[in-house]
Amino acid sequence: MSDTEFDVVGIGNAIVDVLAQAEDAFLEQHGLAKGAMTIVDADTAEKIYGLMGSGIEMSGGSAANTMAGIASLGGAGAFIGKVCKDQLGEVFSHDIRAAGVSFTTAPDENGAPTARCLICVTPDAERTMQTFLGACVDLGPEDVDDQVISASKVVYLEGYLWDPPRAKEAFIKAAKAAEQAGRQVALSLSDPFCVDRHREEFLDLVDNHVNILFANEDEIKSLYQVDEFDDALQQVRGHCDIAALTRSSQGSVVVAGDEVHVLDAEKVVDVVDTTGAGDAYAAGFLYGLTQGEDIAICGRMGGILAAEIISHYGARAESDLKSVLNEKLK
Amino acid sequence: MSDTEFDVVGIGNAIVDVLAQAEDAFLEQHGLAKGAMTIVDADTAEKIYGLMGSGIEMSGGSAANTMAGIASLGGAGAFIGKVCKDQLGEVFSHDIRAAGVSFTTAPDENGAPTARCLICVTPDAERTMQTFLGACVDLGPEDVDDQVISASKVVYLEGYLWDPPRAKEAFIKAAKAAEQAGRQVALSLSDPFCVDRHREEFLDLVDNHVNILFANEDEIKSLYQVDEFDDALQQVRGHCDIAALTRSSQGSVVVAGDEVHVLDAEKVVDVVDTTGAGDAYAAGFLYGLTQGEDIAICGRMGGILAAEIISHYGARAESDLKSVLNEKLK
Repeated sequence: MSDTEFDVVGIGNAIVDVLAQAEDAFLEQHGLAKGAMTIVDADTAEKIYGLMGSGIEMSGGSAANTMAGIASLGGAGAFIGKVCKDQLGEVFSHDIRAAGVSFTTAPDENGAPTARCLICVTPDAERTMQTFLGACVDLGPEDVDDQVISASKVVYLEGYLWDPPRAKEAFIKAAKAAEQAGRQVALSLSDPFCVDRHREEFLDLVDNHVNILFANEDEIKSLYQVDEFDDALQQVRGHCDIAALTRSSQGSVVVAGDEVHVLDAEKVVDVVDTTGAGDAYAAGFLYGLTQGEDIAICGRMGGILAAEIISHYGARAESDLKSVLNEKLK
Repeated sequence: MSDTEFDVVGIGNAIVDVLAQAEDAFLEQHGLAKGAMTIVDADTAEKIYGLMGSGIEMSGGSAANTMAGIASLGGAGAFIGKVCKDQLGEVFSHDIRAAGVSFTTAPDENGAPTARCLICVTPDAERTMQTFLGACVDLGPEDVDDQVISASKVVYLEGYLWDPPRAKEAFIKAAKAAEQAGRQVALSLSDPFCVDRHREEFLDLVDNHVNILFANEDEIKSLYQVDEFDDALQQVRGHCDIAALTRSSQGSVVVAGDEVHVLDAEKVVDVVDTTGAGDAYAAGFLYGLTQGEDIAICGRMGGILAAEIISHYGARAESDLKSVLNEKLK
């Protein structure tokens, strides 16, 4: 790991989140799959938005949130993702750069607008997401700069990239460039429904390209189509160098070869909104890893960041993450 | 006050807020007038936005915030203001309608984009605002529907309307229509610098058109160019039917003819962001007034809403305002 400009380069959907509070009855009434991320077309997105309450807009996107978190911790990060040259695209570009992340992917001049994710936050702090991919569908291999990839210790990808048609080509290109340069490839499985949609490809990826896998309990069980977490854990061992498996209030389990670390969750006084918990975990973990920390410490760092994110509304940090981390790791 | 469809119709700038945390040093470095609302052109807005940290976007606008508050309390409200037909215009239109406010002003098809207000929130919870008026400058008398005015118990206007050139014509038209229909006219002085810019016109307005005046201590002192709050209080008596004067942590003073009510501020455990405090006060006050409450109760309602708004980030309610009000008024 030498001659690198970036600790991590993330590739993902470039999305602006629209968050609004909603009751469970609202989800039921409109047939929204609670806790899931559902891809919707422009018309459906407009219809659902029209039904939602007053919202707040914040930059989002899974890998983009992770990169913003890494940069906030002091890590050097870059992001590759596609926005349109519109107002929401400006918001996304501004925010990720303001967080300290290098973002140079050319925006679409025309075509579909910048992606948005309509997030209903229910009183139990669960988020239900409807994503209109918009300009994200135009991300392709031409947007992946091999030099940025080979200049990064880790290439981090979100499983959601398998939804837009050409993004997986971008990912394969990036994974190969990373392998050639001797860098590591990390993947987040993103969402159990996303795993359902792309299981065969994800299994192949994990076997052949991925060094570091992030998944929550539902996702890893979905990947291996098993009912018990422990069965999934046994399956994933040996398929990648490191698997970091998150279990909400039960903390996380980190596996690397023969090493298994079972880490308790950080205490959270008031869980407000779970949007971005997995993204934040990956940020803490990858920051630790690229700073040379042991994987147990990386897992703790992930847990600390996830606890910060779920204690407020929205998927990006409200606090000085570096101080939070230093305080908790004392 | 019969035959009215709306309790209050608000006329104001239709703005999307961009909130970001900032240190005092940032304001000093870039010459931003702390605590004030400064009008900036498109280039300056872009430059300042580029310097600001990651933001969150929320619908704002002073009178629009007040109308959203009144609707959240169960009051019937309408809003008149100008957005462009762009993404931020959609956000503004969605949010005010989702709050339950009737909003039918035709958006600009072309021309300047929807207005935005760049708000730096410093650690002391003070907000410093740079407003790019955008499409707001196109609001004119043609946007004021006399029928809506005469169907509303109160016409509420923000002083900020004196900044875009033609909006004051819209206001004068609305004030005259209200007078003819026997309705009341309310004005918020908005900002001491805004008072400085338009003092003569505001003095004339208060004398000749305004029944209900909202001002904070700095604004009312600026209006009468006096150093002591009490001197301003003595001056305003007799110039309008009701003056509701807010004094931050010192509560508010409500004057109506010979009646003077001095009301303590509601307790707030943690003041996070003072954006929208005055707007929320006006919402509580006008809701109470149009429900037939005594002015002392109206003042308390205003104080309760202001306390809710400053306890979180952003200028619109996070809580069920009706429950908050009922709880506090027990």
